[in-house]
Amino acid sequence: MAGSFFKGCFLSLFDYKTEKYIVAKNKKVGVLYRLIQLSFIGYIIGWVFVSKKGYQETDEAIQSSIITKLKGVSVTNTTESGLLVWGPEDYVIPPQGEAVLFVVTNFLETPNQKLGYCAENPKVLNGHCRDDKDCEEGKMIVAGNGIMSGRCLGKDENSTGTCEIYGWCPIERIFKPQGPLLTNAENFTIYIKNFIQFPKFTFSKSNVLDTADDSFLKKCRFDKDLHPYCPIFRLGDITRRAGYNFQDMATFGGSIGIVIEWDCDLDKGYSNCHPQYHFTRLDVSVSNKTIAAGFNFRHTRYFKNAAGESFRSLFKVYGVQFNVMVHGKAGKFNIIPTAINVGSGLALMGAGAFICDLILLYLMKKGNSYRERKFEGYKSNKSTSEDYSVEDRKGAKEQKNLALL
Amino acid sequence: MAGSFFKGCFLSLFDYKTEKYIVAKNKKVGVLYRLIQLSFIGYIIGWVFVSKKGYQETDEAIQSSIITKLKGVSVTNTTESGLLVWGPEDYVIPPQGEAVLFVVTNFLETPNQKLGYCAENPKVLNGHCRDDKDCEEGKMIVAGNGIMSGRCLGKDENSTGTCEIYGWCPIERIFKPQGPLLTNAENFTIYIKNFIQFPKFTFSKSNVLDTADDSFLKKCRFDKDLHPYCPIFRLGDITRRAGYNFQDMATFGGSIGIVIEWDCDLDKGYSNCHPQYHFTRLDVSVSNKTIAAGFNFRHTRYFKNAAGESFRSLFKVYGVQFNVMVHGKAGKFNIIPTAINVGSGLALMGAGAFICDLILLYLMKKGNSYRERKFEGYKSNKSTSEDYSVEDRKGAKEQKNLALL
Amino acid sequence: MAGSFFKGCFLSLFDYKTEKYIVAKNKKVGVLYRLIQLSFIGYIIGWVFVSKKGYQETDEAIQSSIITKLKGVSVTNTTESGLLVWGPEDYVIPPQGEAVLFVVTNFLETPNQKLGYCAENPKVLNGHCRDDKDCEEGKMIVAGNGIMSGRCLGKDENSTGTCEIYGWCPIERIFKPQGPLLTNAENFTIYIKNFIQFPKFTFSKSNVLDTADDSFLKKCRFDKDLHPYCPIFRLGDITRRAGYNFQDMATFGGSIGIVIEWDCDLDKGYSNCHPQYHFTRLDVSVSNKTIAAGFNFRHTRYFKNAAGESFRSLFKVYGVQFNVMVHGKAGKFNIIPTAINVGSGLALMGAGAFICDLILLYLMKKGNSYRERKFEGYKSNKSTSEDYSVEDRKGAKEQKNLALL
Repeated sequence: MAGSFFKGCFLSLFDYKTEKYIVAKNKKVGVLYRLIQLSFIGYIIGWVFVSKKGYQETDEAIQSSIITKLKGVSVTNTTESGLLVWGPEDYVIPPQGEAVLFVVTNFLETPNQKLGYCAENPKVLNGHCRDDKDCEEGKMIVAGNGIMSGRCLGKDENSTGTCEIYGWCPIERIFKPQGPLLTNAENFTIYIKNFIQFPKFTFSKSNVLDTADDSFLKKCRFDKDLHPYCPIFRLGDITRRAGYNFQDMATFGGSIGIVIEWDCDLDKGYSNCHPQYHFTRLDVSVSNKTIAAGFNFRHTRYFKNAAGESFRSLFKVYGVQFNVMVHGKAGKFNIIPTAINVGSGLALMGAGAFICDLILLYLMKKGNSYRERKFEGYKSNKSTSEDYSVEDRKGAKEQKNLALL
Repeated sequence: MAGSFFKGCFLSLFDYKTEKYIVAKNKKVGVLYRLIQLSFIGYIIGWVFVSKKGYQETDEAIQSSIITKLKGVSVTNTTESGLLVWGPEDYVIPPQGEAVLFVVTNFLETPNQKLGYCAENPKVLNGHCRDDKDCEEGKMIVAGNGIMSGRCLGKDENSTGTCEIYGWCPIERIFKPQGPLLTNAENFTIYIKNFIQFPKFTFSKSNVLDTADDSFLKKCRFDKDLHPYCPIFRLGDITRRAGYNFQDMATFGGSIGIVIEWDCDLDKGYSNCHPQYHFTRLDVSVSNKTIAAGFNFRHTRYFKNAAGESFRSLFKVYGVQFNVMVHGKAGKFNIIPTAINVGSGLALMGAGAFICDLILLYLMKKGNSYRERKFEGYKSNKSTSEDYSVEDRKGAKEQKNLALL
Repeated sequence: MAGSFFKGCFLSLFDYKTEKYIVAKNKKVGVLYRLIQLSFIGYIIGWVFVSKKGYQETDEAIQSSIITKLKGVSVTNTTESGLLVWGPEDYVIPPQGEAVLFVVTNFLETPNQKLGYCAENPKVLNGHCRDDKDCEEGKMIVAGNGIMSGRCLGKDENSTGTCEIYGWCPIERIFKPQGPLLTNAENFTIYIKNFIQFPKFTFSKSNVLDTADDSFLKKCRFDKDLHPYCPIFRLGDITRRAGYNFQDMATFGGSIGIVIEWDCDLDKGYSNCHPQYHFTRLDVSVSNKTIAAGFNFRHTRYFKNAAGESFRSLFKVYGVQFNVMVHGKAGKFNIIPTAINVGSGLALMGAGAFICDLILLYLMKKGNSYRERKFEGYKSNKSTSEDYSVEDRKGAKEQKNLALL
């Protein structure tokens, strides 16, 4: 007897239980339900699978290496610096070919500065004085150029002069850029060597043509159609594609973002994974004219004379910062994301039935009759169950209104 | 006949089929089910929609540009270097206003080094010797300062001297920092210019006030309430807000992270997207005192004398590295994520029914009677199906125990 | 009456409604359903919980600080530069211990360059000339070294000479590296100090041993088993573990990625979170030999003679770029992701029932009899509902074929 019981249990384990449905011959709700189903199927196929490629495993942890190199020369002639020839080793800061680089387009040299005493710059706040009491000895002003000696160097007895400071003298003169001094900087070219790897798929590629022809890189220029694998750009073209004029940016400086995008569908093979280049100006917001515009900094070159005394040249340089950023993702077919997306898509369809049930039961005129049919009152005909059979007769009517699914 | 068949098929396509439910008048399970439903609805509304803003499409690919600029001067007076005035062009390394910058707070200069022969530093491992045999000619020690000449320069005949090396002499002396030399470095100010863009929403903003008043940036200091758009910080305030004292960090050096967070709800408009600043010390772990503490490096300045011979100044500099990082995301209402989140929330509710069914069928005393009702035995009344009607009479009882849903 | 109606409503709110199932004693479909259920349960437990740790809240916003320091000396002897000793302050560019650094392994110095007139490099495109007309005065060539003076310096009357330029003379000579000059660069060591933080869990750790023993870092070398917390690596070992020979890379230069991976299960505690090191070469793609291989750049040192005239040394340096990247994520148990993953796993099971229903209804021979049973035709026995009772008698047969669930 016990044996046949467990045998029964085991057999019933493999009985298939399926939900019992009632057919509501209501065309309005039926059509609505089919429409909801169709829109979910459309969403799953169109959005999840075609647009988002939900059947693919993706790798977004792109590993990337950027090496940049500039070419081009420029000549400047200023009273302070004389006739100067600028090569990449001078106008690219830092020179080591990093992904973030600065190209000097304008500069002011203050040569032969020595440590000594001279007057503070009149543009410095709190540097003005009427007499020596305004210039406390040893005081340092945040935006100043040195330490106060305690003397006031007035232009005139009554007017505001400036305090004397101990610092690198002569002080840098006030400079309002009128236009870029490295006038042909827009003709410089930048060569952006980019190697990428997707470790998950052991896939690697470069943005430079796989060729043994050494002269290719000497002659080519980037062209989306003709030379997509020649990553050499004219600086003027980069700013133009970002929507700005190079000469305007060059006067006060600015910042340009170069985004290299690798969106690779590895199911289509190696040769279908191409880099895309986008250019944006990074240092302007909605209102074009702010006090925050421009990019400049100072650097120095130190020298020693025969007596061993230090002197230096101070350079205030304006220029354009280029910021090469690499984004990318790769996808490849994999059964696990496919199954998850199919499954969760099917599960989503339950939401459609939920909406239609609500309409059928609560919004249709004949809702009551559906409800009686859909919800079968529990009438114990075999077992005795007094605790809940009390309300049996009223049940069918009372469970009408609030029976949220 | 066939026509009416297909017509029937077509019509039945728009019949709405809805699951048949049985009502179990069991208050315990009913209340449990409603509680589970309520908690899911609470989760969907509270967590998914209010807290995580599940109705929004988000863009986390923030594009950012950072330009930094320091202001402030300091004076040092050491025996090696004499009286020196330090401006930003000297104490900021690298000088080009990048997002990662180092501020010198302490230094040791070794001036007038020339290539020649001198004794190795006694602190260098394996540099000690008793006689010339310990100093193999041409040997280079990993942490050494030059190539061994083969001679041992003993202090005394028996005691351990050091090998003679060919290198830049004199060797840097042993230096134990007693405190920062650039004493007022904590009064330096850093101006952090940050422009961001969310390309998906073509939204851009800056952390600098949109004003035409040039003097604003000359006078203001950051204040969360008064001047949230004046990104000028005193270095001492930054370390204080990171929980550390500047003078302590300045002696041996350290690393500070400045995180700018842009969490923008674009449904609320441009003016509700503000930058938040967070400061953390990056170079300390749980145990405060490790051998890994501190930050220093060496750099050089090269000179040539009248005879064309090279000599150099070697600087060992200690200081604080500032690392400006920008995080951000923007969200905007979109129908697709809203629909997905509503749908998957509803699908989740099925899990509640699953749990209640298990309780009703297997944990309640009256489970058997529910089971008979819930699972309608398949009794073929029209078609003949001998293969499964055999167990019909026992069926209702035997499928009791293992009928997992 | 109204009172008892609302009371009934309220009571029926806590009635539990459960789907009615019919039992199809079909072993094939039953076994299939159980298999699908088992595979989903296996997926949830195995993939979601064990492999992906779906019960954990994760923090992928790792905050990291990298400080690098190199040790080692090398000696070079060239005709241009003479006998030179190279220390880290010379061969590491930039010197400030950043996460991206360049180690010089090969170089060409062009000393004592002065601004003046000399012949263009014959390798420069468009620099060749037959007579003065080819050298337009004031013209600048992109890859050239200066501005044309207008004179053609021919080797011979007929053969191609080069234009005279104004620039830094003498021009750098043509240089084909035969092998690295800093021969023992592979014995240099790099110390990579890495501090990480997971802000969400306020967890921080370093890759350096927590010890007070100062000499530990002077003597140890990284060893996965013996010294996992001694992050000091020999450069030759790094390239070897990336799969390349250091001497091969050193001649023309290259780029190496050092990935530090922190995959922390914080449920297991502080001591179970270890850094993992991976090394890859970043600058080679599938085809090993491309024109894009190698890494070099130029930098300068400026001097002034007694007369105040500038001259400079131009260095073309080849070397290996090291790029330290930190990835990481931390996980800790949290009830919300656990509940979401359990719930959506259960919701997924509905997909299994969907597939089995399709098979049962449309692919089994006895599908019709199941269908009649599963879909209960709506026969209005109480309410009068003429609009849909018309097709009642045919209903059961006609809804056979297209009744998609």
